[in-house]
Amino acid sequence: MQVFYSWVMELVDPTCSPAEHKTERTRLAMPTALAIDLASRLCRALGEPSRLRLMALLANGERCVTELAEAEGEELSTISQRLRVLRAENIVVRRRRGKHINYALADEHMIDLIATVLAHAAEPSRPVAEEQPT
Amino acid sequence: MQVFYSWVMELVDPTCSPAEHKTERTRLAMPTALAIDLASRLCRALGEPSRLRLMALLANGERCVTELAEAEGEELSTISQRLRVLRAENIVVRRRRGKHINYALADEHMIDLIATVLAHAAEPSRPVAEEQPT
Repeated sequence: MQVFYSWVMELVDPTCSPAEHKTERTRLAMPTALAIDLASRLCRALGEPSRLRLMALLANGERCVTELAEAEGEELSTISQRLRVLRAENIVVRRRRGKHINYALADEHMIDLIATVLAHAAEPSRPVAEEQPT
Repeated sequence: MQVFYSWVMELVDPTCSPAEHKTERTRLAMPTALAIDLASRLCRALGEPSRLRLMALLANGERCVTELAEAEGEELSTISQRLRVLRAENIVVRRRRGKHINYALADEHMIDLIATVLAHAAEPSRPVAEEQPT
């Protein structure tokens, strides 16, 4: 009942007008459509457990495909395909080390990103916060 | 040709054995299957431009559905549906303010996350890095 009441409140509350809510809201400029599109593609590329596992492996340092395949217990071709998806979104890059080619997270952003999503996943979910009006 | 050569190298390079690559790799413990699953669901929920735009709006402070619908030029029911997806993954939470219900990013992780994916989206993609062997 509480849930239903909340839902109805959202839809019909006549006292809720945007003008009431104007506060400090300038931390992040509204991104362009292109930025939103690229960012959502980045998230989709990460939205698959097997690709996220590769990210977690690479967060500990660059690795070659052979190492990744061994860690995952998968064929080289399977790992290469996953890496291709991640490279297409500039999530991982290739680094040539003499005759070897290693894969690495593209930048520190990606280390932060994988750490953040895993930290968030480890948190318990929260109930509806009941707070006094400010 | 270079691309093809690189690809073949990945697949067949007989000199590449995992033992050669062991270096400092202890920054992130390998996450559990559950953590990977939850994190990938989080990424999938963000992998859609309209939901990511809501995140960008909420990064500047909590808002009610009416405000979000006005900002997006969408129906309340459409915004409510998107918020439901984000709430299911604990990305946004509801906060009751007297008679109002506001939506907010669940925690600072989510502010970091939206900032990180947008910053990454704003970067130019990189070519294959050519580096000397170490």
